[in-house]
Amino acid sequence: MRPRVIVNVAMSADGKLSTRERRQVKISGNEDFARVDRLKAGCDAVAVGIGTVLADDPSLTVKSPDLRAERQREGRPEHPVRVVIDGRARTPPDASILVKGDGLRVIAVSERADPAKVEALRAKAAVITAGKDEVDLSRVLDELGQMGIRSLMVEGGGTLIAGFIRAGLADEIYTYIGSIVIGGKDAPTLADGGGWIRESDFARLVLADVTRIDDGVLLHWMVKRT
Amino acid sequence: MRPRVIVNVAMSADGKLSTRERRQVKISGNEDFARVDRLKAGCDAVAVGIGTVLADDPSLTVKSPDLRAERQREGRPEHPVRVVIDGRARTPPDASILVKGDGLRVIAVSERADPAKVEALRAKAAVITAGKDEVDLSRVLDELGQMGIRSLMVEGGGTLIAGFIRAGLADEIYTYIGSIVIGGKDAPTLADGGGWIRESDFARLVLADVTRIDDGVLLHWMVKRT
Repeated sequence: MRPRVIVNVAMSADGKLSTRERRQVKISGNEDFARVDRLKAGCDAVAVGIGTVLADDPSLTVKSPDLRAERQREGRPEHPVRVVIDGRARTPPDASILVKGDGLRVIAVSERADPAKVEALRAKAAVITAGKDEVDLSRVLDELGQMGIRSLMVEGGGTLIAGFIRAGLADEIYTYIGSIVIGGKDAPTLADGGGWIRESDFARLVLADVTRIDDGVLLHWMVKRT
Repeated sequence: MRPRVIVNVAMSADGKLSTRERRQVKISGNEDFARVDRLKAGCDAVAVGIGTVLADDPSLTVKSPDLRAERQREGRPEHPVRVVIDGRARTPPDASILVKGDGLRVIAVSERADPAKVEALRAKAAVITAGKDEVDLSRVLDELGQMGIRSLMVEGGGTLIAGFIRAGLADEIYTYIGSIVIGGKDAPTLADGGGWIRESDFARLVLADVTRIDDGVLLHWMVKRT
């Protein structure tokens, strides 16, 4: 069984995840930060794309000691399984996601990945090879499902999220919209890549919930099955 | 006195105004369509950039006969003054904005505009020349103010809106967020152009109102004066 895929991003009022230089920007506040931490703590795994690893070097750990303790009381590992979608095995061996916090890491690579780099990553993570030129997200989800993972939070970036949406693999999308304008035609957004041209190809959503948080608003969307 | 500048756009859940081909897409529904028409009917003028004229050929007329009649009862022209920001005078003489509906048109050009094209446009519109290489939006607003225009709705596209925001000339921003994902790193957004890099340069907003409309949500932002 494939895990449920829950996308979570913070964007500016003009739909940007960061500046055109991909520098991370404070878009939300403490209340939303706590919500994201709770969402993460509630998931079995959390994934990012290699672009986000290289740009932001996130650890993807659960930040709240209370939430970590709660996970442990429930017999779960302190942090969700941390997953990098990394077609060419470019995750640096000293990336925060590999060195910070306990728990399993999974790196999903394609067949194009340099075998030496893959071998080096195997020392620190379970490596899934799925897909010829690019990572086959559907097969990655199958593999994660076989590992017992029932829910996967996807934190970005825009290319990876677009990949999940395009493949019909995203189930829910949380977009926190903050009270700034970042601007820039080259700044990353929730869904980058080539995009869709035909209206029949657009992903259709249902707005499940609208909540004002900090100085912005959280939209909770369900992705319609086509 | 400069007119109050009210930006209004509809965007997908991933912040896109249209596809990467700039093809207009149905993002909102009838209720939001009526809201936009009311907002337009309430303004003295409505502006778009030349990119939007060339891509969408909008007429920018008030659609509702009731709203048009109401404007006339109040002694106002049937439609707001229609303004094109068009640095190089590329508005086609048969553009809908020039041929559909009665009322004044204003084309704002820069000094780089071809004099022959400017002359041809003068047959159909008042032409404001403001700015050397690009249209100086601040001077355009001054001129519109002198024409008695107190409120200007800006309908797009992303480059023009970014210009108003960057120059500190936008007062309010309405973003309707629809329940689709358009995707595409090259699709237009609310604020394109170069964007901002330093956090101190980001435009700061205040979320004035959140309203669920049709299948999406309308956010009403006020731009903070810096």
